[in-house]
Amino acid sequence: MTRRPAIHLLVLTFLIFHSYTLANAQTDQKSIDDIKAVIDAQRDAWNKGDIEGYMQGYDKSDNTVFVSGDNVTRGWKTVLERYKKSYDSLEKMGQLEFSDLEITLLSNDSAVVLGRWLLKRSKDEPHGRFTLIFKKTESGWRIIHDHTSSA
Amino acid sequence: MTRRPAIHLLVLTFLIFHSYTLANAQTDQKSIDDIKAVIDAQRDAWNKGDIEGYMQGYDKSDNTVFVSGDNVTRGWKTVLERYKKSYDSLEKMGQLEFSDLEITLLSNDSAVVLGRWLLKRSKDEPHGRFTLIFKKTESGWRIIHDHTSSA
Repeated sequence: MTRRPAIHLLVLTFLIFHSYTLANAQTDQKSIDDIKAVIDAQRDAWNKGDIEGYMQGYDKSDNTVFVSGDNVTRGWKTVLERYKKSYDSLEKMGQLEFSDLEITLLSNDSAVVLGRWLLKRSKDEPHGRFTLIFKKTESGWRIIHDHTSSA
Repeated sequence: MTRRPAIHLLVLTFLIFHSYTLANAQTDQKSIDDIKAVIDAQRDAWNKGDIEGYMQGYDKSDNTVFVSGDNVTRGWKTVLERYKKSYDSLEKMGQLEFSDLEITLLSNDSAVVLGRWLLKRSKDEPHGRFTLIFKKTESGWRIIHDHTSSA
């Protein structure tokens, strides 16, 4: 009889610990799913010629950073305008494909995503890699830093 | 007299809150200083022809990721060996310069660093940008993900 309370305490401790880790794992999986959904939505928007829709994946801030080659561009609006000028036809936009996505949570509200990109167009098929830093904002997970390189 | 305790409570709350934010700001500044020191040490090691020293800035893990152009290389040892082969003379290593460093903390134990790199050599001067993801490890702040692009 003396052992009973100890066992109960052990079981209780286990259950609390187990539900805690389980809850954390579920939160992490939800974050990963949410980030994946943002990236998928970007691809779908791009492939319909919807640049504004594509840009919804980025944090609408003047501090959002876009790095490519030796160039840094800052600010959501600046990049939106640049995309609109550079990709003024469906032919230029082509069909965007992402693959080999690796989503790594850095904390409860930040993550890094590594992936491949490929733009299928009639005249060429540029491709490369991207590193994205995501932050959980009031609007959900959004990209605050995009470093894209090409072959 | 009735107001005294309320004022005392207000002052106490202010002091606790103030010391809390102050402590946080100091921790943040220490993290930023520590990260800066890791990057400076990398540059100094490189400029002495010390590739092993340069590599100390990276997390000694098989998961450490190096992205460049359309290539991804994984693992601390793999990259060390590759560097040793590619830069087998002081002339090839040249003098490395970093500038425009922007260190942004993402959480207590993660940060992103944006910067410019320039390699001064007798025959050429390649240059570009890098995005580094730092994690606070048991050995201190270390790079777990490096995306480097060039002009």
